Amino acid sequence: MRGVGEATLRTVLSARPSGAGNMVGGRSEPGDCLFCSIASRRVPGHIIFEDDSTAAFLDLYPYTRGHLLVVPKRHAVRLPELPPDDQTALVHTLSEVCRRIERICPDYHVSLNAGAKAGQVVFHIHFHVIPRYSEENPFLGSGRARLRDDDARELARELSRA
Amino acid sequence: MRGVGEATLRTVLSARPSGAGNMVGGRSEPGDCLFCSIASRRVPGHIIFEDDSTAAFLDLYPYTRGHLLVVPKRHAVRLPELPPDDQTALVHTLSEVCRRIERICPDYHVSLNAGAKAGQVVFHIHFHVIPRYSEENPFLGSGRARLRDDDARELARELSRA
Repeated sequence: MRGVGEATLRTVLSARPSGAGNMVGGRSEPGDCLFCSIASRRVPGHIIFEDDSTAAFLDLYPYTRGHLLVVPKRHAVRLPELPPDDQTALVHTLSEVCRRIERICPDYHVSLNAGAKAGQVVFHIHFHVIPRYSEENPFLGSGRARLRDDDARELARELSRA
Repeated sequence: MRGVGEATLRTVLSARPSGAGNMVGGRSEPGDCLFCSIASRRVPGHIIFEDDSTAAFLDLYPYTRGHLLVVPKRHAVRLPELPPDDQTALVHTLSEVCRRIERICPDYHVSLNAGAKAGQVVFHIHFHVIPRYSEENPFLGSGRARLRDDDARELARELSRA
């Protein structure tokens, strides 16, 4: 799972608008936070689900086709910092996203990394949902290709449907 | 993350009472389910937290010190099958367990595997919480040692405290 962090770093470095602020000491503030920016649509993202408290969008450097991130709209670094009502909304969205992923792939990982040693790079709580189409380990290997616009549009169409 | 499944298999094969039933076709029924048995205390486990709907206990073959599993008491294979109230209870327990893990290690993974290709071996929803003490990848390598009784008692003491 180490690779999740490394690859997320590449995502962030690529997707982050230049000069949009830095993470200091393993934390980030809401105004500087990439996932706050995507969830509030200040930065474009392929959002496939949102409600008042949560958003789910395609990972720009997917491990496998359909790799998604699920985030609370409220900025928090770690799960225990998030108020209980936002935790509730988060798990319901996570479940809804898993239900939609099951349309395209019955097997998947859900993972959340807390802290730099666990590979957390964007210091805003996010669950990865990563489809597993085969036994082959998608977390080994050197790099992930950036999501192509046509794939993103097709996936967004498939997964945005309730 | 492939390794999570393989190692869980070893856990199950070791911990499962002989003749306690089999999983058929990637599913298991409540009466045969190892995690139903632990959560209801029909099979011994190192439970560090429980409420009406959820339980958290030490993994018998921890990847790292403090590796825990968080489960709903209601039997379900995948998150979308679990009723919303049980999902809510599950995320609140997950958060409580993360808060307690942060006492012994600030960095950790939370992961849930759905389906055999994602390494799910016990077909009852479970979140792993796996502390990360160093950058070294704990998921590579050949095997995990069984949790020692004295370690289990010490960890249970540390983590059972509210």
